[in-house]
Amino acid sequence: MDESSFEFWFDFASTYSYLSVYRIDELAQNHNIRIKWKPFLLGPIFNTQGWDTSPFNIYKAKGEYMWRDIMRLSEKYGIPFTHPSQFPRNGLLAARVSVAFEDESWVAEFIKSVFIANFSEDKDISNEEVLSSILNALGLDAAQIITQAKTQENKDKLREETQLAADKSIFGAPTFVIGGEIFWGNDRLEDAIEWYSKL
Amino acid sequence: MDESSFEFWFDFASTYSYLSVYRIDELAQNHNIRIKWKPFLLGPIFNTQGWDTSPFNIYKAKGEYMWRDIMRLSEKYGIPFTHPSQFPRNGLLAARVSVAFEDESWVAEFIKSVFIANFSEDKDISNEEVLSSILNALGLDAAQIITQAKTQENKDKLREETQLAADKSIFGAPTFVIGGEIFWGNDRLEDAIEWYSKL
Repeated sequence: MDESSFEFWFDFASTYSYLSVYRIDELAQNHNIRIKWKPFLLGPIFNTQGWDTSPFNIYKAKGEYMWRDIMRLSEKYGIPFTHPSQFPRNGLLAARVSVAFEDESWVAEFIKSVFIANFSEDKDISNEEVLSSILNALGLDAAQIITQAKTQENKDKLREETQLAADKSIFGAPTFVIGGEIFWGNDRLEDAIEWYSKL
Repeated sequence: MDESSFEFWFDFASTYSYLSVYRIDELAQNHNIRIKWKPFLLGPIFNTQGWDTSPFNIYKAKGEYMWRDIMRLSEKYGIPFTHPSQFPRNGLLAARVSVAFEDESWVAEFIKSVFIANFSEDKDISNEEVLSSILNALGLDAAQIITQAKTQENKDKLREETQLAADKSIFGAPTFVIGGEIFWGNDRLEDAIEWYSKL
């Protein structure tokens, strides 16, 4: 195995990212892979494609199919899922928290909790109080973390991460990146794990 | 098992349809499923979404990814694949032949041969001679078949089938339809087979 890392690029609003967030830990443990959690914003990338919202909202048949597909897949995987009353939800602050504290051991738990809040508990993850209560439940100082997430330096950091995603030719989420190889979609998680294991 | 049929909706220009064309027979045989081959044209459906060609040509990053993905998947499945020098190729005549003779026992072989010509042999499947030689190789009267495929009645039939696809909320190919349930993409072939088997 060479020194390539296994990067998991995701957007907090992305339904298929939720499925991978739920599934990736067990797969990674089984293959001794350390995941690099890489939050980014799909919005600016969609904008360059001429979209001002999720393509699932723009293309109706595809959007209706997606919800049915997610329902079937969550049953298949045994993942709790509730159709959120708002879609897509704004994951900006959650992404800022995640990049600001990407090296902290609690960040993976925070990310999972935010996805569960959005897609299982139908909570508004753009609401600062929702994120605060998640951080507090992890035994953290929510006020201090959110203040740090909102600094100009950290805002710029998330912007750079999103630009880095675009530079890697990422066009959707989830995307798994291993060196120069990219795998798009929850459907490709197993293939990406296998690819990495063979390096 | 109830009386729902297992419909395989495909477009001759579709790369992911090619993977399913190659894989479906073995899966269907293992589960005693009779496949209803349903050719249609993605073009008119894409037009209603504001696209004048394949979205893989319109959205560059997604298109480049698709070719890499197809290459990896064809290796994984052991499917011969050559990046066609033209994409998408016009499958209109091939689709007309397929709908005109949908009840003939040879039509599945014809369909497979056309996909192989396009995606393994890099032949221009819009060329009548390419289709003629495929039909002749199957021991058929190519001239007579093509004449019948080009009648106004049959042109209308393909148009109706494409409208039927749109009515079923089909927005891409391949799509597997079982009653009111639709499964989009080569990635969903196994799920569709399992769904049908549990009816």
